[in-house]
Amino acid sequence: MLDVESFVSSHTFRIADLGCSVGPNTFLAVQNIIEAVQFKHQCQGLHYQLPEFQVLFNDHTLNDFNTLFSSLPPDRIYYAAGVPGSFYSRLFPNASLHFVHSSYAIHWLSKVPKSVVDKSSPAWNKGRIHYSNSEVEVVKAYEAQYAEDMECFLNARAQEVVCGGLIALIIAGRPNGTLHSQTTHNMIYDLLGSCLMDMARKGIIGEEKVDSFNLPMYFMSPKELETAVDRNGYFSIERMEDLPPITELCIGNHPIGQIVKVNLRAVLGGVIKAHFGDVILDELFDSFGIKFEEGFQMIMSGGKLNFFALLRRKAMD
Amino acid sequence: MLDVESFVSSHTFRIADLGCSVGPNTFLAVQNIIEAVQFKHQCQGLHYQLPEFQVLFNDHTLNDFNTLFSSLPPDRIYYAAGVPGSFYSRLFPNASLHFVHSSYAIHWLSKVPKSVVDKSSPAWNKGRIHYSNSEVEVVKAYEAQYAEDMECFLNARAQEVVCGGLIALIIAGRPNGTLHSQTTHNMIYDLLGSCLMDMARKGIIGEEKVDSFNLPMYFMSPKELETAVDRNGYFSIERMEDLPPITELCIGNHPIGQIVKVNLRAVLGGVIKAHFGDVILDELFDSFGIKFEEGFQMIMSGGKLNFFALLRRKAMD
Repeated sequence: MLDVESFVSSHTFRIADLGCSVGPNTFLAVQNIIEAVQFKHQCQGLHYQLPEFQVLFNDHTLNDFNTLFSSLPPDRIYYAAGVPGSFYSRLFPNASLHFVHSSYAIHWLSKVPKSVVDKSSPAWNKGRIHYSNSEVEVVKAYEAQYAEDMECFLNARAQEVVCGGLIALIIAGRPNGTLHSQTTHNMIYDLLGSCLMDMARKGIIGEEKVDSFNLPMYFMSPKELETAVDRNGYFSIERMEDLPPITELCIGNHPIGQIVKVNLRAVLGGVIKAHFGDVILDELFDSFGIKFEEGFQMIMSGGKLNFFALLRRKAMD
Repeated sequence: MLDVESFVSSHTFRIADLGCSVGPNTFLAVQNIIEAVQFKHQCQGLHYQLPEFQVLFNDHTLNDFNTLFSSLPPDRIYYAAGVPGSFYSRLFPNASLHFVHSSYAIHWLSKVPKSVVDKSSPAWNKGRIHYSNSEVEVVKAYEAQYAEDMECFLNARAQEVVCGGLIALIIAGRPNGTLHSQTTHNMIYDLLGSCLMDMARKGIIGEEKVDSFNLPMYFMSPKELETAVDRNGYFSIERMEDLPPITELCIGNHPIGQIVKVNLRAVLGGVIKAHFGDVILDELFDSFGIKFEEGFQMIMSGGKLNFFALLRRKAMD
């Protein structure tokens, strides 16, 4: 898929992992990419022109880069750098990247759409923390934010990735044709919102606190990604594949409610704590765990799709 | 000094700051470099070919990169990256840097010379924490470590810096011809060592603890730097200048003993705490402050030299 021969003259093969967090998953991904690139060189008889590798690990400025740097594999064969900032903006110089990787990160929007926290807007998302089961205006606000963000993402990468360079995305999404409200991811966040509203009704937190809290996440379908890529125009889609659902892979011996609760707390504990304070965390996730077990069959019957997409920077402009 | 015209085709001008710490000094230095490069482009009529800038901030893996990243200037006009690791080894891909800057960092050796903590060696540095006033074997061990480190530094940079690229070093050193023992920097560390030995005599810390503690610092003279650069062969020295002594610049209204004590604790607190524990810090630096005031005239009569050196990567190999 990668035309390594055309990159040989640049000596350095640069890889970026967008939304890398603190490891170790990012190190495994990067190692796989490097081995594949080396293998490709060998297959094409370019043994003597193996490039040096530089890996640019990106995440938000508040990511714990100290932990990331301390856990870098000591036997790595690449030069490592950390790059702080949002991947919806420019992060790297022009035409400096050969391969971009991003795993389970791009469902995070750049921000909560403004209108959903604006009381005077028809898209005001009262009593909910996400767009599934919300008024159509809320759904539209999230869809518009997604479209805007994806355009920013693709435009930024179009500048940064060399012609012929690849972007590999692993995406938490939803199946084509499935309504937002019938998608497992969204049903889970809807359930969490209802737990927060329960706490508001009990007077543990203020209702306005819930009204003003929204999750900046959007679960796109493969079709939506195709539309965004086509509209943008700088990339071709080389491959698109459904991935096996994570829940089937990692249940093991633990009750599913427990696993989902722990994972969700790991993912959202920070933003919830920042908005509501940390005293509510135990009660919130305990009640979520119970409700999740109760609604398990229904939630699991929802549409689920994690998918892989491989984009190639077109040779133009 | 910089032949920017020869770099224009590479689009990205890459700057590395080695030993950047957590800011804000590094941001000022980088800003000055970028403005100078832009000015040079303008003077040479290359207005329309202004490059993009990428700045690679380097320090030890245990440096607080989270603080560095959080305090990056929001209005910066460069792409920022953090690069963890020792600048005595390779940190960047081949021929990827155009300008390297390092301020008050290169007097840190890569490590304490092994022989000075080896009881069976003639260079065993009993009862001292540094090489000034030590046996000649100790001085030689430090000199050898310096020579080895500087060769590693120059060899790594020779690979990383493009031909014609520059290295600007601001160095805490000693004047040509001045003995180590008659250099202010060294006299200060010698004094700190004597405070530690006082505490050992009082039984507050073990004497072996002092014997096994040595500071990995070496204060080179301009002549020694010249020798190292000539022996290495990859760089020419374009400029070498003495800098005004820092003590004259920043005394202000505070007693000099207080200033030196606070600065020294900021610089060495970490390594002393790691070796001796943190209970001794207050007493150690208090007694240092008193001894320093007493010996002020004598210490200040020692040789002092901070100097600037500008190296250029030769066009060869």
